Amino acid sequence: MKALYDRCGGMLLEDVIPFWLRHAPDPEHGGFLHHLDREGGVFSTDKGVWIQCRAVWMFSKLYNTVERRAEWLQAAASGWDFINKHAYDMDGRRFFLLTRSGGPLRKRRYVFSEAFCAVAGAEYARASGDENAMQRARAAFGTLLRHYENPLVSEAKFRPETRPMRPLAMPMILLATSLEMTGNDDDPIYQVTAERCAGEILRFFFKPEIPALLEYVSSGGGLIDAPVGRLVNPGHALETACFILREAERGGNDSLSRAACDIIDWTLEAGWDEKHGGLFAFIDAGGFPCEQLEWDMKLWWPHAEAMCALLQAARMTGIERYNMWLEKVSEYAMSHFPDPEHGEWFGYLHRDGSVANSMKGGLWKGPFHVPRALLMLSTASDEARNFRAAGGRNKQRIGGAGSRF
Amino acid sequence: MKALYDRCGGMLLEDVIPFWLRHAPDPEHGGFLHHLDREGGVFSTDKGVWIQCRAVWMFSKLYNTVERRAEWLQAAASGWDFINKHAYDMDGRRFFLLTRSGGPLRKRRYVFSEAFCAVAGAEYARASGDENAMQRARAAFGTLLRHYENPLVSEAKFRPETRPMRPLAMPMILLATSLEMTGNDDDPIYQVTAERCAGEILRFFFKPEIPALLEYVSSGGGLIDAPVGRLVNPGHALETACFILREAERGGNDSLSRAACDIIDWTLEAGWDEKHGGLFAFIDAGGFPCEQLEWDMKLWWPHAEAMCALLQAARMTGIERYNMWLEKVSEYAMSHFPDPEHGEWFGYLHRDGSVANSMKGGLWKGPFHVPRALLMLSTASDEARNFRAAGGRNKQRIGGAGSRF
Repeated sequence: MKALYDRCGGMLLEDVIPFWLRHAPDPEHGGFLHHLDREGGVFSTDKGVWIQCRAVWMFSKLYNTVERRAEWLQAAASGWDFINKHAYDMDGRRFFLLTRSGGPLRKRRYVFSEAFCAVAGAEYARASGDENAMQRARAAFGTLLRHYENPLVSEAKFRPETRPMRPLAMPMILLATSLEMTGNDDDPIYQVTAERCAGEILRFFFKPEIPALLEYVSSGGGLIDAPVGRLVNPGHALETACFILREAERGGNDSLSRAACDIIDWTLEAGWDEKHGGLFAFIDAGGFPCEQLEWDMKLWWPHAEAMCALLQAARMTGIERYNMWLEKVSEYAMSHFPDPEHGEWFGYLHRDGSVANSMKGGLWKGPFHVPRALLMLSTASDEARNFRAAGGRNKQRIGGAGSRF
Repeated sequence: MKALYDRCGGMLLEDVIPFWLRHAPDPEHGGFLHHLDREGGVFSTDKGVWIQCRAVWMFSKLYNTVERRAEWLQAAASGWDFINKHAYDMDGRRFFLLTRSGGPLRKRRYVFSEAFCAVAGAEYARASGDENAMQRARAAFGTLLRHYENPLVSEAKFRPETRPMRPLAMPMILLATSLEMTGNDDDPIYQVTAERCAGEILRFFFKPEIPALLEYVSSGGGLIDAPVGRLVNPGHALETACFILREAERGGNDSLSRAACDIIDWTLEAGWDEKHGGLFAFIDAGGFPCEQLEWDMKLWWPHAEAMCALLQAARMTGIERYNMWLEKVSEYAMSHFPDPEHGEWFGYLHRDGSVANSMKGGLWKGPFHVPRALLMLSTASDEARNFRAAGGRNKQRIGGAGSRF
């Protein structure tokens, strides 16, 4: 594994981060131009708020945990300023998409922009010492939490009076955000919320009888006999498992950690393509056709998430199976996604592993999943050493270099 | 071509229509169960309003133009009753998705349910003699027209104050609906609207300088330099060309017909996959990566639309190129989409032509594009004979067996 970890470190610092620093910063308006073709050319100047926030988080995290490089802090500052100037609507919510100069293009029902704004602000505050950024992060977290308690009816895709549904994405994102905030702020609300979200994920979405971690259940946690109710998103399931493992580690909760390992086992069993290798984008837990046309495509981010979850599981449990899977998934990812010619990873492969879309960045792909996974893996040797030296899982520090949002 | 036309007729009456009659009618609640797996098994009982309406149109059309079979009228009646009982919201708009028993699941911003309801009612009225169905069809057309004149702000995907956009889909669907209504109702509004929509499509979306028929332009018809502004949907472009050809034929307008042929030429040039054959689902007119993950998949409906458009172009212009393309597209479609084992067509192929998703029916695929195209082609020999006998394009009857919605 040492060779893998070293390869990840090199790829992070000599390929992926330089790719983004070379092509993404917008010298004219600040923030990041992230719709990049294979060579790094800009094919759209629209600016996604998710990507702006995630880039701020990533560059701040590198600055906080790898090295205090001025160019990383400068990139983070530019993105953070752009968000603050342009991403807020008058109702306090954040937009989803902006023009290059910051004009509002789209706002969505979901509060994910708020979640990414919270972690960006908290990590940037640590990097810059800007207390105002921390306050904005707390405010964004508050919006997210209020929205979780009182979801708007308008948010529902299906009419709640006919099909009341509970989406996995909400407790997952709140869990991830809470865990990340615990590393940067003292308020006990983050730990309380993380514990609550992990509990709710297991109570509602964790279905050993299928077995699967489902994307949508009825409001009481019952199965919905429709494609939406049978939907499994292997990337989501694996990142959720990783967040639950981190919460298990934080709270010293072994039953949480066993459940997270179940999720990993089920998801790899059902989501791994035995024919061509790689993880499917979507599967139907009942074995029926998926409505998602891209169901059998191999996307970059589920593979990055799988690597993080497997590393975390291997480290916490010592079970050899997770090391084997980490090697298998990494081997697939490293031999299919990186572009040796122009840098970074391709994002979208056909089922057979050939490149379906050569873009390096778009509405969903920015400097986030790939560098985050590479950072986590590149520090895995140190982490394991620290872990052993500290005497086990319950004394692990929170928010270290390998910490994940 | 005779062999192709005969094959289409056989496939329509011995394979495709029997497949739907065998699997789709819901004996319990009426209407159609249309989420069908490869064998015809129901994998979701949700009922899409588009498909209910389109099925009513198709079975009525068969009854009106092929043969007065009681089972076709009965299927149409069952669907029409289901729509009338369940598809109307209190504001007069139609829902998009219902439960099996008719409970409302989703309503969408777009008024396409209304468009399909109008043509279903008009064709069903002709089949059944039910004057109430014609009245409902007129009312639905009225809603569609009002919506076209005064689109709701809430309808816009992008904020109109920042990026005012005009979608091709609206005049296209209104043109198609108007043309279909001219065959079943005397009101001059349909001809006026068809002429106006064809004109607006050419004025705003027809771009010889690219060359392409674009999916979205600015409100004044200007180019939008963003992925959405460069988007070409070959299936949409070809069906639009077919509708414009029909309007050209109705109004005796040669310049319209020349423009439609340009659209066909541009779209086949840019949208045909030289490597594997077949039409791409989406292309970027600037040659940049498409945001749509399924961009290079081969979908059933663009091929069905292409066959209709090419037949219409060949018939109206006599240009041999359109016959050649009709043969080429039909050869691809007939050798890739039909499922000889379980009937009907597959809907979703990978770029290389292998089946990506084995479903026979879903939210977008029902008894519509395939049987409509097969019906049009199967009657092509008769049509051509009638056409010549009538002395040319301007005297063609409207709304005959080969008429397309």
